[in-house]
Amino acid sequence: MQEISQLHAIFDRTRGYINRFMGIIQPIIDAAQDEHTRLYYHHILEEEEQRMGRLQELIPYLESLAAENKTDKLSDRELSQMLSDINLERFGLHNFREHLELSLYEFQDDATRQVLDGMREKTHEDYLHVKEMMATLSSRFSDVYQADLTDHDEGHDIHQVDHLKASASAPHGVASVIKHSPAPTPAKKGLTVGSLKGK
Amino acid sequence: MQEISQLHAIFDRTRGYINRFMGIIQPIIDAAQDEHTRLYYHHILEEEEQRMGRLQELIPYLESLAAENKTDKLSDRELSQMLSDINLERFGLHNFREHLELSLYEFQDDATRQVLDGMREKTHEDYLHVKEMMATLSSRFSDVYQADLTDHDEGHDIHQVDHLKASASAPHGVASVIKHSPAPTPAKKGLTVGSLKGK
Ligand SMILES: [Fe+2]
Ligand SMILES: [Fe+2]
Repeated sequence: MQEISQLHAIFDRTRGYINRFMGIIQPIIDAAQDEHTRLYYHHILEEEEQRMGRLQELIPYLESLAAENKTDKLSDRELSQMLSDINLERFGLHNFREHLELSLYEFQDDATRQVLDGMREKTHEDYLHVKEMMATLSSRFSDVYQADLTDHDEGHDIHQVDHLKASASAPHGVASVIKHSPAPTPAKKGLTVGSLKGK
Repeated sequence: MQEISQLHAIFDRTRGYINRFMGIIQPIIDAAQDEHTRLYYHHILEEEEQRMGRLQELIPYLESLAAENKTDKLSDRELSQMLSDINLERFGLHNFREHLELSLYEFQDDATRQVLDGMREKTHEDYLHVKEMMATLSSRFSDVYQADLTDHDEGHDIHQVDHLKASASAPHGVASVIKHSPAPTPAKKGLTVGSLKGK
């Protein structure tokens, strides 16, 4: 299955993003002036740590399947389990995108905002791609697996909101009091996602 | 396995709590004055909806195992899968407790705060109970399953904070502008968790 290599690449990328995201958020937790802010970002990081734990098992598994072309030899139960695991990480990508969007409301400096928004955009693409592959795979293997492809987004227009724009005028968050925040970059152009190093 | 019945009872209770929690949070989303607040609570509800989706499969499965005493007949793979599913819901309980704690910072009326804090307390107990059972089960079935019993709480003191107390003096949230909020109750005593109806 060609999809396995693509899924592997997506989950490998998001694993790197989690590390970068953690590097951005941890200073907020450390600098938080109240328990609510601390709990809020601690909670988001914990959820991402849980996702990281699952990805650390799923990524090598997909890698071994792809390398040895073993997917055809999976039992029905193994196949169903794999599809279920991938579907859980589809939700994981969706939630991560929202963690990134929520974080946009914390930061005023363009460098960090560009990094967050870059990861948000790619994560959204990856999410849609995984969703599409899940639809294909679950129709191909409909005898062993029924995917719940719900977005839980029905009736909500929140996903149509441009949070980069909406957050631009948000009140300053705790990020503004962080002592070692990245120096503001005068030029927006030429800024790359990699220019702000993750942890 | 006696644990299966206990796990079933816990997950059945938390399913009821999710419904009650949604009934409390949805009006906040509807009344939100800005995109950040709307995204924030929308995100929390979505995560709980995802959890509900998983519980709707797990609860009847555990029920059938308990009713027919089938646990001994599970294959190694089925047993491993079941333990993995339960462990995921252990994280689910942990995250739900934090969703409840975060929500405490939104509400000023005692009735809602008591309901949230009651669910928080029981959810924390349930979480610890599931964690304990997971430790027992994964040592009993160590040949087929290795549980990751990490809390992702290491080095954090946030879980020692009394968020009911800390949130008492928090700035008023959007809850204060909800038109159909429950009428303030003059007497704290005699208030029961059931006195505020969920959806
Ligand atoms: Fe989240
Ligand atoms: Fe959450």
